[in-house]
Amino acid sequence: MTYELYYWPSIQGRGELVRLALEEAGAGYVDVARTRGVKAMQQYLASAAGNLPFAPPFLRDGERLIGQTANILLYLGARHELAPQDEPGRLRANELQLTLADLIVEFHDTHHPIGSGLYYEEQKPEAAHRARDFLHHRLPKFLSYFEQVLVRNPAGDRHLVGERLSYVDLTAFQVIEGARYAFPRSMKELAARYPKLMLLHEHVRRRPRIEAYLASPRRIAFNEQGIFRHYPELDLGAG
Amino acid sequence: MTYELYYWPSIQGRGELVRLALEEAGAGYVDVARTRGVKAMQQYLASAAGNLPFAPPFLRDGERLIGQTANILLYLGARHELAPQDEPGRLRANELQLTLADLIVEFHDTHHPIGSGLYYEEQKPEAAHRARDFLHHRLPKFLSYFEQVLVRNPAGDRHLVGERLSYVDLTAFQVIEGARYAFPRSMKELAARYPKLMLLHEHVRRRPRIEAYLASPRRIAFNEQGIFRHYPELDLGAG
Repeated sequence: MTYELYYWPSIQGRGELVRLALEEAGAGYVDVARTRGVKAMQQYLASAAGNLPFAPPFLRDGERLIGQTANILLYLGARHELAPQDEPGRLRANELQLTLADLIVEFHDTHHPIGSGLYYEEQKPEAAHRARDFLHHRLPKFLSYFEQVLVRNPAGDRHLVGERLSYVDLTAFQVIEGARYAFPRSMKELAARYPKLMLLHEHVRRRPRIEAYLASPRRIAFNEQGIFRHYPELDLGAG
Repeated sequence: MTYELYYWPSIQGRGELVRLALEEAGAGYVDVARTRGVKAMQQYLASAAGNLPFAPPFLRDGERLIGQTANILLYLGARHELAPQDEPGRLRANELQLTLADLIVEFHDTHHPIGSGLYYEEQKPEAAHRARDFLHHRLPKFLSYFEQVLVRNPAGDRHLVGERLSYVDLTAFQVIEGARYAFPRSMKELAARYPKLMLLHEHVRRRPRIEAYLASPRRIAFNEQGIFRHYPELDLGAG
């Protein structure tokens, strides 16, 4: 069975959280807009009967169309053993995923505090202000929380939930990777405070399928159209 | 069985989405911080073993502790027939709930575009800018989407998912109620474009248990500490 992933072809964005899960699962998938063009995605969206998605990413599995990143991962987690299979574990994975999703919105808003339809260049002073608040208060609060989640995981501190790798670990990897790309100076300072989280990042990076994926042309490089953008003037110690 | 809901006692906030579900279900619950004080909530959070939540709201059901609003509703929806019981319907409800959650973040950020730890008064010009963008572009985009979801629901246009009331309908009610409180002038203009959505709002408001709840002291009034705030200067047609 081959999944169809619909997402913007030139950025990692939220689609990357789905790509990482599909890659780790070894699942067959077509990255539709990358292989058939953005038009194929837009045409599909316009004609979608029933479960209209709000925005990419969305995933097609045969007759089923599933939108919202955390919801796609809830679906894939159950099918590919990328999440605990019992209900409490499944809900805990979803809870942590939604918290990572909240953090991802805040990363995005460091460069787009005023409007997502405007350019960064139209909101630079506001972005500098918001990024400062984010790096001083919000990012440490989230990282410190996830460090605690690892420390308190009853099944051990190698994973955020349960005793095996889950899609939550994959997303945490991507968030730390993105944070390091966007805010290298800040992350150099912060990393030492969250040793378990940094170990988790390293451990995911070395998973054979993830390592192969990251080295492949399927992995789009970070860039300044995505969620994690490197604008040196927004990093701590700047200016 | 009595649930314990942990949420800030003086605002509707995200806790309100859980309160509405519990009220519609006729479920027994204690609103912990409102009845025993905020300290009881904070003490519980500090001592929580295992499933540490990131922030209120969280729900205790016996030994289980569940965080993140959409995740709590996923749990309650399954137990109280407040969501379709088949997997496709359950996932669709979750997808729509996450889209409403995204919209709620954008409501919040109209008055807090720079930092959630700062006062509105410290970010008024940026808030005016962001609110304008929100009311012109983002809010109509979301409302138009949900109108389409109603129109295309294969089970009929009275509900967002399936043929019965779900927690998604309850959240949509709360979002429209909040939008009217925060931006009365804009909503007066916008409402006529989304007739099905306005009917849904009215239909939820008249559910016997919801009507009784809204008239009771358990319903906290909208105010300027919550997510939906009425700052006339942010509404369209202002200034």
